[in-house]
Amino acid sequence: MILTVTLNPALDDTYEVPDVRFGEVNRVAAVHRRPGGKGVNVARVLHGLGHEVTAAGLAGGVAGRRIEEGLASLGVPASFTRTSGESRRTVTVVGAEVTVFNEPGPAVTGEEWAAFLGGYERLAGDAAVVVLSGSLPPGVPPDAYAELARRAPAPVILDADGEPLRLGLAGRPAVVKPNAGELARATGVRDPAAGIRLLRDAGAGAVVASLGADGVLAWTPDGLLRAALDRPETGNPTGSGDALAAGLAAGLAEGLPWPERLRNAVALAACSVRSPVAGEVDAGELPALLSRVAVRTEEGHAARSHE
Amino acid sequence: MILTVTLNPALDDTYEVPDVRFGEVNRVAAVHRRPGGKGVNVARVLHGLGHEVTAAGLAGGVAGRRIEEGLASLGVPASFTRTSGESRRTVTVVGAEVTVFNEPGPAVTGEEWAAFLGGYERLAGDAAVVVLSGSLPPGVPPDAYAELARRAPAPVILDADGEPLRLGLAGRPAVVKPNAGELARATGVRDPAAGIRLLRDAGAGAVVASLGADGVLAWTPDGLLRAALDRPETGNPTGSGDALAAGLAAGLAEGLPWPERLRNAVALAACSVRSPVAGEVDAGELPALLSRVAVRTEEGHAARSHE
Repeated sequence: MILTVTLNPALDDTYEVPDVRFGEVNRVAAVHRRPGGKGVNVARVLHGLGHEVTAAGLAGGVAGRRIEEGLASLGVPASFTRTSGESRRTVTVVGAEVTVFNEPGPAVTGEEWAAFLGGYERLAGDAAVVVLSGSLPPGVPPDAYAELARRAPAPVILDADGEPLRLGLAGRPAVVKPNAGELARATGVRDPAAGIRLLRDAGAGAVVASLGADGVLAWTPDGLLRAALDRPETGNPTGSGDALAAGLAAGLAEGLPWPERLRNAVALAACSVRSPVAGEVDAGELPALLSRVAVRTEEGHAARSHE
Repeated sequence: MILTVTLNPALDDTYEVPDVRFGEVNRVAAVHRRPGGKGVNVARVLHGLGHEVTAAGLAGGVAGRRIEEGLASLGVPASFTRTSGESRRTVTVVGAEVTVFNEPGPAVTGEEWAAFLGGYERLAGDAAVVVLSGSLPPGVPPDAYAELARRAPAPVILDADGEPLRLGLAGRPAVVKPNAGELARATGVRDPAAGIRLLRDAGAGAVVASLGADGVLAWTPDGLLRAALDRPETGNPTGSGDALAAGLAAGLAEGLPWPERLRNAVALAACSVRSPVAGEVDAGELPALLSRVAVRTEEGHAARSHE
């Protein structure tokens, strides 16, 4: 079983507004309301691909109940610890461009965090892989991801930003998956290869950096690898990082070699970009996308990043 | 008691996003969640000013319960007919500019509409003024406002758009309150004075057209009057039309002369623009705003529109 942890989940609304006009009143053509938050998206993608998964985290209020009901209606097993504060909502407006509005999360009490930790240890004991994703709501310790990684007997994939990512490295996660902005914010350097090296030195077993149109650059036991699509997909990028994390988790659980793991993950991310709704993929499109992914060793980068 | 009718209410979220960037991911600095929909905003403004009011309409699902709970927590008496479909939400993003996203409403059944009509007749019998505001959800007859106006013993203020406004005139409402766009859409003419005349010919007892920075142009038994602020207020225009309708309803209930009625309504609308949240006014700002409203007779326009 793959365990996903979402400490700051959200009720995600995707608004389809074909001719959106900012600064004006817009009629929403279609509304897609789904349980969200990065780890929840990872769980939905894995479940959609037929993997055994459990979505854990913190959830509160009406929005929290809707997140749990939404996962239940999708058939995704979930185990959330209730919080007194209400879970947040996010709104993604999909028109000619994609605009995302993320509400702040609810305040979490020490008792609620302690209650989550108890349940987490039981779940992590049964997991083949643990995926820790997204922001931390107020009240959760900033080093929460280090703590969760230490308590997990299984290998951990960490997908976070800023301080939660920097402090999380102390838990020695098996894989860290930053995008270009997260990598730069966490390391203070602009060159991806140099930033990747810094994350490994700080405790990451492997680092998979998603660089948009440049594909992913990954420092693995097989060396520095780059996996990229022949041409970028256009659509809704929201959730494509979560699909990438889902692909990495599946490959880790199945013990696939790194090149194949990266190929699957990149194809899955591209598949997600094609979907108007974050966290949804059409597995039927995967074979065609897999054939468009090239994976190669980056000797040059590897050498430079050793200097 | 002033009765407001909101057949397509909404759970209104106002997102404060100071440096909003469209086409990107935005963190929402503050969220204001309030019961909304035009008639609900009218009821909230009137209640805030100390008037006896009842908010009626259709409400369904979790959003519908939240609208009722929100009104209860604000102390606004409400009497909504439950629908099987869930009430809609709206999102207003307040940054350098104001962008509104309106979800479509839920489908209403014939039985639900009939149940509302029964309750409406009882409430309208006790009302000094009835305010009919906003769009009609799918399933409600397009001539619903004509029907509701005919069944009301009290004078009716109609604030609607398009077909519901055009067909509503057959119910001979005492006052119709279109903005410039609604006036043009309902009459097909661009000149406000000419459009106002057409609405009167079609059944409106009086017409108060809100023309933005030009203030309001009103055809009343006292002639064609214009009421305008010395300089326009800047802020969140969402809900200012509802505050204008609230001012007109209060003036009608109190039997104020038209010039005073318009002065109060224009000051109230300006007060609403200053609030970041639709449907809220700071009554303390009213005296200063009232002194900035000029009301005069528009002989020229009146003459021209008689040609």
